Amino acid sequence: MAVIGIVGGTGKLGQALAGRWAKAGHEVLIGSRSTQSAQATAGELSARFGRTLGAGTNLDVASRAEIVVITVPYAAQEERLSEIRDAVAGKIVIDTTVPLMPPKVMRVQLPAEGSAAMKAQALLGEGVRLVSAFHNVAAHKLATDAEVDCDVLVFSDDKEARSVGVGLAKDAGLRGLHGGALANAAAAEALTSVLIFLNKTYQVDGAGITITGTLVEPA
Amino acid sequence: MAVIGIVGGTGKLGQALAGRWAKAGHEVLIGSRSTQSAQATAGELSARFGRTLGAGTNLDVASRAEIVVITVPYAAQEERLSEIRDAVAGKIVIDTTVPLMPPKVMRVQLPAEGSAAMKAQALLGEGVRLVSAFHNVAAHKLATDAEVDCDVLVFSDDKEARSVGVGLAKDAGLRGLHGGALANAAAAEALTSVLIFLNKTYQVDGAGITITGTLVEPA
Repeated sequence: MAVIGIVGGTGKLGQALAGRWAKAGHEVLIGSRSTQSAQATAGELSARFGRTLGAGTNLDVASRAEIVVITVPYAAQEERLSEIRDAVAGKIVIDTTVPLMPPKVMRVQLPAEGSAAMKAQALLGEGVRLVSAFHNVAAHKLATDAEVDCDVLVFSDDKEARSVGVGLAKDAGLRGLHGGALANAAAAEALTSVLIFLNKTYQVDGAGITITGTLVEPA
Repeated sequence: MAVIGIVGGTGKLGQALAGRWAKAGHEVLIGSRSTQSAQATAGELSARFGRTLGAGTNLDVASRAEIVVITVPYAAQEERLSEIRDAVAGKIVIDTTVPLMPPKVMRVQLPAEGSAAMKAQALLGEGVRLVSAFHNVAAHKLATDAEVDCDVLVFSDDKEARSVGVGLAKDAGLRGLHGGALANAAAAEALTSVLIFLNKTYQVDGAGITITGTLVEPA
């Protein structure tokens, strides 16, 4: 079990992951720009899951955690990552950022770097063990106790760190799959806009994806 | 039923689609750089499916068809599209091109235009009714008579043309889904590299994708 700090942990995805990971036995720290908000969310989740979650500023939890998870809107990615840059050196950072650009959230608009993941790499530098994951799962579904029918594609140039991401997907009750290099995150990031389009076009309550075919777990 | 011309119709994906569409009752024309190769493939498919498929050069079938489908390797996309540009003005063109760049086919490498689809749009101009689809389905599976467990995401800025693409996916025995704007093709194109990575990592015989959730067909 690991100490997991969630930057942007008061948001929908952050809360949902925090709850599931706390339930799985991890020590989870809720980070926010406001310590008060973080404490409020941590208190609610602690009561709900019967586990004590910690709280603090984003920088505080990034400093204390072994694994740092980023769950912030795309517009905030650059600022939040710059704030924690020094605190996460050498650590595994799992960035969930998807480059949605309101109001055109149903249109794929990948950043000049190729993906939000590659942008994170540029912002955090080579010293961090960067993983990109959890792009396609609907936060409101993850926030329930129900099973969520969505695979989690996990990307990283660091295979060991990627395995940690795959394990955290499983701990959250989802099938985590190695998706290859960090650059491949573009696929899952872009897919989120397609899923939002599908939600609207086909009246879906949170479309997801599953990989088809018979998969054999690597040794 | 439509007259469908397949540019690069002697390739694996082209043949597989041709067979399924012929079986569904469409009039299918196999195009190739070599008329002889096209005739050979058309002959084989005609014998196998008990339907007469036509044949000709790529330009020839693009000229004769109502709907033109492009199934060529990424490296040949620019040349093939330039050849047929004048012949496809005003027509529906369904481009299946995925930007795989050997030897690194497991790495997402989207072109500067954002996607092979956007590159096709730039090459063919605004006069064509461009659709992008069939990126993720394994050709060797489609070549059999078996059911293939893979959704087809269909992208276009022309909604009516996109519906034709969705219909052609269904005629090929697959679930076709509106995926939104042509720019969104980046998601499915990028996903193909991830699927190739999954095939290798998890020993899958042609991984595919399905969209999860309850989808309601739009009126």
